Amino acid sequence: MRVRILGIGMGPRHVTPEVADALRGCDYAVAARKREDDGLLALRQAVCEEYDLPLVTVPDPERDRDDPADYAAAVAAWHEARVAAYERVLGEHGGTAAFLVWGDPSLYDSTLRIVARIAERGAVPLEHDVLPGISAPQLLAARHRIVLHEVGRPVHVTPARRLREAVDAGQDNIVVMLGGELDLTGLEQWSIWWGANLGTDTEELVSGRVGGVLPTIGAARTRARDRAGWVMDIALLRRPT
Amino acid sequence: MRVRILGIGMGPRHVTPEVADALRGCDYAVAARKREDDGLLALRQAVCEEYDLPLVTVPDPERDRDDPADYAAAVAAWHEARVAAYERVLGEHGGTAAFLVWGDPSLYDSTLRIVARIAERGAVPLEHDVLPGISAPQLLAARHRIVLHEVGRPVHVTPARRLREAVDAGQDNIVVMLGGELDLTGLEQWSIWWGANLGTDTEELVSGRVGGVLPTIGAARTRARDRAGWVMDIALLRRPT
Ligand SMILES: C[S@@+](CC[C@H](N)C(=O)[O-])C[C@H]1O[C@@H](n2cnc3c(N)ncnc32)[C@H](O)[C@@H]1O
Ligand SMILES: C[S@@+](CC[C@H](N)C(=O)[O-])C[C@H]1O[C@@H](n2cnc3c(N)ncnc32)[C@H](O)[C@@H]1O
Repeated sequence: MRVRILGIGMGPRHVTPEVADALRGCDYAVAARKREDDGLLALRQAVCEEYDLPLVTVPDPERDRDDPADYAAAVAAWHEARVAAYERVLGEHGGTAAFLVWGDPSLYDSTLRIVARIAERGAVPLEHDVLPGISAPQLLAARHRIVLHEVGRPVHVTPARRLREAVDAGQDNIVVMLGGELDLTGLEQWSIWWGANLGTDTEELVSGRVGGVLPTIGAARTRARDRAGWVMDIALLRRPT
Repeated sequence: MRVRILGIGMGPRHVTPEVADALRGCDYAVAARKREDDGLLALRQAVCEEYDLPLVTVPDPERDRDDPADYAAAVAAWHEARVAAYERVLGEHGGTAAFLVWGDPSLYDSTLRIVARIAERGAVPLEHDVLPGISAPQLLAARHRIVLHEVGRPVHVTPARRLREAVDAGQDNIVVMLGGELDLTGLEQWSIWWGANLGTDTEELVSGRVGGVLPTIGAARTRARDRAGWVMDIALLRRPT
């Protein structure tokens, strides 16, 4: 059987022609059904409807969210449970399956690792390929009409839990993902470009000096969550010169 | 007048529906005409043909490529010359102009800075917006079917000339852009995923341990250049564990 891992950006308006063609050649799409709705299932459904693709949902195994000491091991265990769940679904349905990846498959997404692991286990023989999609950092930059870095400089993309490490290591342009309440103590002089629920109708944008806009960001985050029922946010932080 | 800065990824197969709609609403597209063909003008032309958009080319001012001591200042002078050239073209044509950005406008691209600067100068009053596109790092990752970082880890994107800084600062996952011959001395044990002319019919891919695949990369790079008449390459480097 065949698995196609397809980046769908932030929904139908980001589905590239090559992904659209791939969708037309698939028999069904597979998506996680999370216990807590993050809004993404509905957006994946919208893509499936547009391409007339049946959507098979896979209940997502529980994951320890309490920031355990051994983060990598906790994530690994969770992955193995997901691998088994997806393997079963693929084995049952066969044919050509589409995995609809929110944003781009290369950034903080486990789909690729899950599918590679299923291929490796060999119980359900498959070949897989990947097509890119628009990622959250790109949409953040587009909405704020900014380049992610100054001329000729690096940009550093990191999970919120590693923000301090990046700051301490001297990074100047830091894209922070996988948020939660961000602790920006000590970074009051930095610039921030922040966005929540980008590409959806509950999108929120705030930018300015961290010290000045933190309350505005807090309010916007609450508003996004109230309106959508979920919130996903991302920020670019830039060190003062 | 209005300027729309549109990410077109690596050509027509990456033009998202929102960018396609924007293109249909533009009067013309603007693109740089470089002295040395980098192949991108032809790809922009392909997009314009598909959307029946006249293409206005702007001769690109000379730029000091000799890696001058004050890199930022050299780039700034070059930008100011480009600003004047584009300002003239926009003033002459008015209406709604599309700037077709190769890849994504947020990554190592000067379009946004040029347009913001024209807006700031005020001689040609304009409003501008930005739509994202598929970037080279994403396509590199898709082709190699990899995530750019290990679980929960950062990814660092940097120009080739700053690779050493990133290595010395302890970065583990480094996307290297704006190449030239890469000097990977001392990184023989690192893993590399490399690609050239991605998304075109002269695409080349190589991966492996740096020490093992350097000659293969060199040969593939020459092949890409011979076949296309130009070469653009990118790599992900990962520190050995
Ligand atoms: C598991 S990661 C997936 C990233 C995705 N693969 C991508 O390419 O954007 C989820 C994180 O991405 C960011 N994110 C994803 N979609 C977003 C959106 N629509 N608005 C703001 N942030 C978003 C948030 O930081 C969120 O915590
Ligand atoms: C001026 S930057 C522009 C990057 C672009 N804005 C993007 O989002 O990918 C040009 C560099 O991007 C990389 N690049 C762009 N297109 C590429 C392609 N088709 N294949 C390989 N590398 C590419 C190369 O490292 C090249 O030196």
